[in-house]
Amino acid sequence: MKATLRCIGAIGTPYHTLRECPRNIDPEGPLCELRIDERYTDGLDGLSAGQEIMVLYWFENVDRELLVQQRRHSGPPLGVFALRSPARPNPIGAAVVRIENIAGGRIEVRGLDCLDGTPLLDIKPAMRGEKPVKRD
Amino acid sequence: MKATLRCIGAIGTPYHTLRECPRNIDPEGPLCELRIDERYTDGLDGLSAGQEIMVLYWFENVDRELLVQQRRHSGPPLGVFALRSPARPNPIGAAVVRIENIAGGRIEVRGLDCLDGTPLLDIKPAMRGEKPVKRD
Repeated sequence: MKATLRCIGAIGTPYHTLRECPRNIDPEGPLCELRIDERYTDGLDGLSAGQEIMVLYWFENVDRELLVQQRRHSGPPLGVFALRSPARPNPIGAAVVRIENIAGGRIEVRGLDCLDGTPLLDIKPAMRGEKPVKRD
Repeated sequence: MKATLRCIGAIGTPYHTLRECPRNIDPEGPLCELRIDERYTDGLDGLSAGQEIMVLYWFENVDRELLVQQRRHSGPPLGVFALRSPARPNPIGAAVVRIENIAGGRIEVRGLDCLDGTPLLDIKPAMRGEKPVKRD
């Protein structure tokens, strides 16, 4: 398989170190910004505020060989495919969020969990069953 | 960004031509099989039948330059990021499905939309808000 990813933009978040990053997506978290590169902005046509989207992004500089990992709270180690850890063979993050604002190649959403400057890979309209929900 | 994907396995589906592929995930569709390569099976530890997972996979041989596309039914063309089309800058498919069976590096799920032999990229436990739902 020859599969090389293209960066379609970058994600702006309030987090500059891994310690600051929250552990998960929070639909009520702080505003974050998807900045789509100019060459890809035609692909945004049809998206609008209020719509729910799945955002895919790339966790840089992680260990891609850790197949079994300790969970963050307690309990025995688990396989990487049973965890949402960013350290995984293909470190792709996935978040389902609502568009708060969209204008000029920039989309505001809430509560992403990644570092400021994270490469953006894809945006898809969310399907039934992928909608964001409020936290318990 | 240097981001090359690794194939962690392959997806077995009943579909051998694009014409046969359904247009979307169907939680009640036919059984499909995630076949995880032996070198990655340690990463499955902790997954079990009944659990809901997000599966990421790679649509091969698609046009990655089509930023505006005609919708399949009707209406004006839309930007690729407002569509679930497999033809996109990073042709990553995402499906939230339930594990029907898991044993020996093979996971059975229902209703994927891709060709038989599609490269598998990642499996993650589904989070709140990503759960599969019945069709309307």
